[in-house]
Amino acid sequence: MTVSYTLKVAEARFGGFSGLLLRWRGSIYKLLYKEFLLFGALYAVLSITYRLLLTQEQRYVYAQVARYCNRSADLIPLSFVLGFYVTLVVNRWWSQYTSIPLPDQLMCVISASVHGVDQRGRLLRRTLIRYANLASVLVLRSVSTRVLKRFPTMEHVVDAGFMSQEERKKFESLKSDFNKYWVPCVWFTNLAAQARRDGRIRDDIALCLLLEELNKYRAKCSMLFHYDWISIPLVYTQVVTIAVYSFFALSLVGRQFVEPEAGAAKPQKLLKPGQEPAPALGDPDMYVPLTTLLQFFFYAGWLKVAEQIINPFGEDDDDFETNQLIDRNLQVSKHQDQESRAAPGPPLPVSSQPGRGKERRGGSL
Amino acid sequence: MTVSYTLKVAEARFGGFSGLLLRWRGSIYKLLYKEFLLFGALYAVLSITYRLLLTQEQRYVYAQVARYCNRSADLIPLSFVLGFYVTLVVNRWWSQYTSIPLPDQLMCVISASVHGVDQRGRLLRRTLIRYANLASVLVLRSVSTRVLKRFPTMEHVVDAGFMSQEERKKFESLKSDFNKYWVPCVWFTNLAAQARRDGRIRDDIALCLLLEELNKYRAKCSMLFHYDWISIPLVYTQVVTIAVYSFFALSLVGRQFVEPEAGAAKPQKLLKPGQEPAPALGDPDMYVPLTTLLQFFFYAGWLKVAEQIINPFGEDDDDFETNQLIDRNLQVSKHQDQESRAAPGPPLPVSSQPGRGKERRGGSL
Amino acid sequence: MTVSYTLKVAEARFGGFSGLLLRWRGSIYKLLYKEFLLFGALYAVLSITYRLLLTQEQRYVYAQVARYCNRSADLIPLSFVLGFYVTLVVNRWWSQYTSIPLPDQLMCVISASVHGVDQRGRLLRRTLIRYANLASVLVLRSVSTRVLKRFPTMEHVVDAGFMSQEERKKFESLKSDFNKYWVPCVWFTNLAAQARRDGRIRDDIALCLLLEELNKYRAKCSMLFHYDWISIPLVYTQVVTIAVYSFFALSLVGRQFVEPEAGAAKPQKLLKPGQEPAPALGDPDMYVPLTTLLQFFFYAGWLKVAEQIINPFGEDDDDFETNQLIDRNLQVSKHQDQESRAAPGPPLPVSSQPGRGKERRGGSL
Amino acid sequence: MTVSYTLKVAEARFGGFSGLLLRWRGSIYKLLYKEFLLFGALYAVLSITYRLLLTQEQRYVYAQVARYCNRSADLIPLSFVLGFYVTLVVNRWWSQYTSIPLPDQLMCVISASVHGVDQRGRLLRRTLIRYANLASVLVLRSVSTRVLKRFPTMEHVVDAGFMSQEERKKFESLKSDFNKYWVPCVWFTNLAAQARRDGRIRDDIALCLLLEELNKYRAKCSMLFHYDWISIPLVYTQVVTIAVYSFFALSLVGRQFVEPEAGAAKPQKLLKPGQEPAPALGDPDMYVPLTTLLQFFFYAGWLKVAEQIINPFGEDDDDFETNQLIDRNLQVSKHQDQESRAAPGPPLPVSSQPGRGKERRGGSL
Amino acid sequence: MTVSYTLKVAEARFGGFSGLLLRWRGSIYKLLYKEFLLFGALYAVLSITYRLLLTQEQRYVYAQVARYCNRSADLIPLSFVLGFYVTLVVNRWWSQYTSIPLPDQLMCVISASVHGVDQRGRLLRRTLIRYANLASVLVLRSVSTRVLKRFPTMEHVVDAGFMSQEERKKFESLKSDFNKYWVPCVWFTNLAAQARRDGRIRDDIALCLLLEELNKYRAKCSMLFHYDWISIPLVYTQVVTIAVYSFFALSLVGRQFVEPEAGAAKPQKLLKPGQEPAPALGDPDMYVPLTTLLQFFFYAGWLKVAEQIINPFGEDDDDFETNQLIDRNLQVSKHQDQESRAAPGPPLPVSSQPGRGKERRGGSL
Repeated sequence: MTVSYTLKVAEARFGGFSGLLLRWRGSIYKLLYKEFLLFGALYAVLSITYRLLLTQEQRYVYAQVARYCNRSADLIPLSFVLGFYVTLVVNRWWSQYTSIPLPDQLMCVISASVHGVDQRGRLLRRTLIRYANLASVLVLRSVSTRVLKRFPTMEHVVDAGFMSQEERKKFESLKSDFNKYWVPCVWFTNLAAQARRDGRIRDDIALCLLLEELNKYRAKCSMLFHYDWISIPLVYTQVVTIAVYSFFALSLVGRQFVEPEAGAAKPQKLLKPGQEPAPALGDPDMYVPLTTLLQFFFYAGWLKVAEQIINPFGEDDDDFETNQLIDRNLQVSKHQDQESRAAPGPPLPVSSQPGRGKERRGGSL
Repeated sequence: MTVSYTLKVAEARFGGFSGLLLRWRGSIYKLLYKEFLLFGALYAVLSITYRLLLTQEQRYVYAQVARYCNRSADLIPLSFVLGFYVTLVVNRWWSQYTSIPLPDQLMCVISASVHGVDQRGRLLRRTLIRYANLASVLVLRSVSTRVLKRFPTMEHVVDAGFMSQEERKKFESLKSDFNKYWVPCVWFTNLAAQARRDGRIRDDIALCLLLEELNKYRAKCSMLFHYDWISIPLVYTQVVTIAVYSFFALSLVGRQFVEPEAGAAKPQKLLKPGQEPAPALGDPDMYVPLTTLLQFFFYAGWLKVAEQIINPFGEDDDDFETNQLIDRNLQVSKHQDQESRAAPGPPLPVSSQPGRGKERRGGSL
Repeated sequence: MTVSYTLKVAEARFGGFSGLLLRWRGSIYKLLYKEFLLFGALYAVLSITYRLLLTQEQRYVYAQVARYCNRSADLIPLSFVLGFYVTLVVNRWWSQYTSIPLPDQLMCVISASVHGVDQRGRLLRRTLIRYANLASVLVLRSVSTRVLKRFPTMEHVVDAGFMSQEERKKFESLKSDFNKYWVPCVWFTNLAAQARRDGRIRDDIALCLLLEELNKYRAKCSMLFHYDWISIPLVYTQVVTIAVYSFFALSLVGRQFVEPEAGAAKPQKLLKPGQEPAPALGDPDMYVPLTTLLQFFFYAGWLKVAEQIINPFGEDDDDFETNQLIDRNLQVSKHQDQESRAAPGPPLPVSSQPGRGKERRGGSL
Repeated sequence: MTVSYTLKVAEARFGGFSGLLLRWRGSIYKLLYKEFLLFGALYAVLSITYRLLLTQEQRYVYAQVARYCNRSADLIPLSFVLGFYVTLVVNRWWSQYTSIPLPDQLMCVISASVHGVDQRGRLLRRTLIRYANLASVLVLRSVSTRVLKRFPTMEHVVDAGFMSQEERKKFESLKSDFNKYWVPCVWFTNLAAQARRDGRIRDDIALCLLLEELNKYRAKCSMLFHYDWISIPLVYTQVVTIAVYSFFALSLVGRQFVEPEAGAAKPQKLLKPGQEPAPALGDPDMYVPLTTLLQFFFYAGWLKVAEQIINPFGEDDDDFETNQLIDRNLQVSKHQDQESRAAPGPPLPVSSQPGRGKERRGGSL
Repeated sequence: MTVSYTLKVAEARFGGFSGLLLRWRGSIYKLLYKEFLLFGALYAVLSITYRLLLTQEQRYVYAQVARYCNRSADLIPLSFVLGFYVTLVVNRWWSQYTSIPLPDQLMCVISASVHGVDQRGRLLRRTLIRYANLASVLVLRSVSTRVLKRFPTMEHVVDAGFMSQEERKKFESLKSDFNKYWVPCVWFTNLAAQARRDGRIRDDIALCLLLEELNKYRAKCSMLFHYDWISIPLVYTQVVTIAVYSFFALSLVGRQFVEPEAGAAKPQKLLKPGQEPAPALGDPDMYVPLTTLLQFFFYAGWLKVAEQIINPFGEDDDDFETNQLIDRNLQVSKHQDQESRAAPGPPLPVSSQPGRGKERRGGSL
């Protein structure tokens, strides 16, 4: 489920974001704890090996290797590449969200321009909106793993009422290497043109508005499909991942506590500046490498941000609630239809009760 | 209340932004002083402990730990991650502002295309605009804590005249897990379609324009709702927060003044470069850690920027004045309606007074 | 006046931007010289104090403090926060420029769709465009200090011919806490609807186009107003300003020349790396702190960029020429009107002179 | 073929992106291995020369040169310029993708507004959509090497059925230095105007909608052409390339293992801080320069991201599948046409089967 | 001429961008070689002076000054400010390109909605499109030095057939401080309104579409004009330029080879870290300052990117080919007109040859 937390931080109170640190669902802890444990375990193994198993000469060599690794780790500008990469992923993530098609506006036009309170008029409106919903379900099935789980086969789509059996046959008779979300849009167009011919849509302006809204809807489906098809260039993702992983591989070796004596032979050379976290002489033996774990948390966490939202249609805690959106769209569609049916009956309450209207104006209006 | 200050800095005068530093409302001081005091107090406690309570050996160990913490603090590239994160939050903040629906344009179309100067015509126009305002109130209630305080229940919405009791019953009879801001939009559509059938809207072009404007309005409501639902991925916020908090936890320990003698045993090793603010030998004993407090102010302040605007619908000094906007929209709506009523009366002054018009042209026109 | 210089750098010649360095109007020198002199004076006072007034012990203490300040100054990542902040301000600046409403397109629609060559027809067109111009003047008055100087009271707006006395009374009778730029838009709408009823606008399509263009125009006015109302969060500006100012306060103290002897007691410890500009032993005594002044110029100049354009409606050399734009809009409006009046007269020259047209085609067409 | 991998990382699992590291197609390994081998070979040659061929004095000189090169390499802020440059290229890359014209929406309008079920009506619709497809093929031929391979001459375009021989003659008779993708658009316009005159398009509203959609389509073709014509300024690409190449040239020399003895004469001076990866005394002799290879991988890989997507219409693994898109567009066009033909026949299944419709509503609707 | 090179790098081959390094036209070498030679010459003069003319004491002082300059140079975060500034300039550059008005879409609407195959009908269409082209020429004249060279006076514009003598008189009789590109747009509007009254434009929908397209065209002209008027704030450009120039001035002095003996008196203090490229003791005497030249190339090249594209309407190798675009627009206009004339003649080939159409469908369609 999407993790909405902005209400919790509506005010910049004392402590600010600290409340957010205690959450588990969708949190960095939940995402990262396995990697964290693995990293800790590997570090411990290396540490124990060094302390218990190595001879003095081996320790001396190890100290050299550790220093080398440590310096190497600092040569990779992780923060830069992560900053630019995550910004790219976050922008794409939000664009994908805004590309999810919502039928509200299409529905509004349908109910205003497709006339007829008889059985056939209702069916017409209902079928049009069903086609629109079908198109979005077809796209979302190919894009979102949640929706695919809900509708694993076209049979499920039919069972859920998005499609009739006849339509399914027609749909499946068309072979295509591409997603066929555009087929229901074609049906929609043809049905709308038919309705125009039958006079259910009274003039071409209404038809044009309908087609324009359909085109906007279709463009969103198309966008969603293309976001799925064209990923961020794999090379970029690989470069970033390799950078982060190498950094931690080098850290594992390089950030081990090395006994001061191991390098005691050359004190004059060990004039390390502050940036270097290598165990300078006299450093306390921190059995737990606090600094390194903090760095791990920070950099690996930053990469996890990208991992989580590079495909926001998965089943992460923070991924988009595509199934809920489908349900919502269904509800909105259904209600609109009922309202439309109701509308021609009694006049809307307000317009026939001027008294109450006036009284209201005495209020805040 | 929103803090507008650009008028104060309209000109790049001597001193420039310095005038802005003396403000309290909406200022960084007001937001940060509690954290600042806490940080100072903790620092003081540690400092007193070191100076008064520790033995010479303990001080030696502390000096080691402090140096270690200090180096660790510098390993976190705070400025990078804050730069990218705050940029993201600021962009979202402005997008949210521009998503607040304003009824101006919808109203303009209503008053030009819904005809009729009789009681029913007026009611029609008034009801349409009321539905639009209702939709925005419904969205803002779920998004803004200020608006929720003003309208804690639907009863308050009814009392304020945005809704009749009948409408409220109808509205509440519809169960939905989602915000139902779209329901008044459906009513709007149906009422407009009704008006078209009654001839109050004279042709389909006017109806189309009305529906298009409604769709734009609805899209803004929808956007606002989605900005609220889909927060910036929690993981990102947590990573940034943890980075900043760890930095200051490490600073607390690492930036303490450590007596030079504590490390006097190894002067050859203490060749720290300039970046390292650790107490090098010979440093003056600054009882107040000016540098560290400055850094605290800077980094914590930068994070506060994000905290304040990540939800701009709260009650911070600098958050959006949603209630004022609602009042303004009401006023605009009411005035437009009165004007429309007035319009059919006497001709507009200018168009019947060519003389004055000519005289005017003698001016700057 | 706006400083346009791109023509001077149309070609990437030898020397490139060097020509731009010699300008005074709108230049960094003009903006910064006062701060520069103040900084220089304070530096000189400190320098003289150190050299002439302090005893040897005081100098020793001062050298410690200076070294401390110098290191502190380097801890603030000024370039980062300035880079991100100035980018934000520059983007806003350009968006504000593109939000200034231009009546061209509205006028084009008015002259094509409001018919009638008689006195009343002309008055109608003229009044419509006057209302549009009035709306932009009302917004610009609240936004731009230049426009406010030109029209300090509503009386001046009336005198300039943007408003009649009757309209002013009506306008002022409406109390509102918000800018009332939308009132002329309401008048515009009502007048347009009136013209439609009178048959001056022949069909609803033309009226719709007119309303759409008005809505675009109104949206720009609205945007301008909101850019003025909602500033960049004060906290952000304060954090950046404090960072820059602290940096220079610390530099003032820390970048003083300190006699080598002052620290001569511990030569082994003074192994400063290259980043540290503190006077290392053996440094020449630069009486003028060239480096520090250069840094001042650079960082303070970067902040001045933000100061100058954070409110581009002021009276800086480089601010928008809002008054000129108003004059231009008036001229465009007036001319369009005259042309329209002229149009119904003789046919346009070209369309009646095919011979010349053909001859022309022999040219480049 | 486009490399879509987001489905593989739909969930932020343990290990995250690690699965992506094992791919070959479209991977950084495939793109970079040749450069990597070359770099390795050159490094080995230098290393062998140093170890086996140089005399002691030559080694001493070499050690000096290596140290110099090494320091020089660190002076180039590669990560900055690559970060900004790659961001620019990635943004352009996505904009180019979204500029590929898709005929869906145009087709939808054609089938709804161009009437007639006879032979001529079908031909009319088919020809219109063929012209649209032709325009996109003409643009893509000049932009995409894949499409050019498929259609090396206009004859191939004719053979594929996008153009008749008569049209080709007419097309080729027009000489132009620019891409003539706009010619089929002109034909489209003329044919549409003709259809309007013949009454096949029933009113001007439909024609307007058709022209508007054509204009959107044409704008995309135009955009694509302009993206191809106007590259990122060559100077920028050269600066970045030279920076990366120089860095590695300097690394080749500077990162060689230099015997400690080579610098043993001045141990006091070799107090290098951590950032310096030069072989400090006592460094282990890593025969394989792990650090340097890692840096090579990282920086050269980052540049490869830009190389791969600066022209996304080539034949890289990750380039756009323009031929597949053309096939898809053809299929969509063909199907739409068939559907349109079928539509006037029997009523759409749903609209005549209310029973099934009701049953469906019992489901999730 | 615009330098298009993306076709050369369509595939990410071995070597990648290396092929681009060998180009001369539009290259960094061509842009930078003069500055490079000047920098080299100044460096040589200083170097010779130091080596041949200075006494030992002077050399000692010089070594101090050089070290000071060298450290100062590193204090300016050039890469940051260049990164942000160049990004800003590049974004503006592309926005300017997309603002160049293209008449294609306007023309398409004209030829579809302005009817009449007689002499007057053709003249009408031709005049409308001529007005549109005239507007763009007027804007481009004020913006682009190339276009101004082609049309130095209005007489040249008349000679090229964009304007008649009568129109020129009328145009020049209007005095304005601003560019008068909007005058032909007014003429266009009036002529279109006239055509509507004459029945040449059959209904208001067509006229509306025409006006909408004109408004889009006019908005692009307007944008182009405003991009020219409002430059990037001069202060920003100056700050960046001064930063780069100071850097190189300091480098000139600071990067000179200084004899080791010059500082030999204090070997303990010269413990410079890796970032410092100053000649540490034992450095080889590089007569050619390779590192410094590389840095010059890199930073000055980066600034040259900005210099070249800050005004893309100049005569640089890489500037926009505005004259070619005007020629292309003329050709497109002319052709469209001819086609329109031809259209009413014989039916379009395809629509009357169903056989060939079917055969085609057997192909890939």
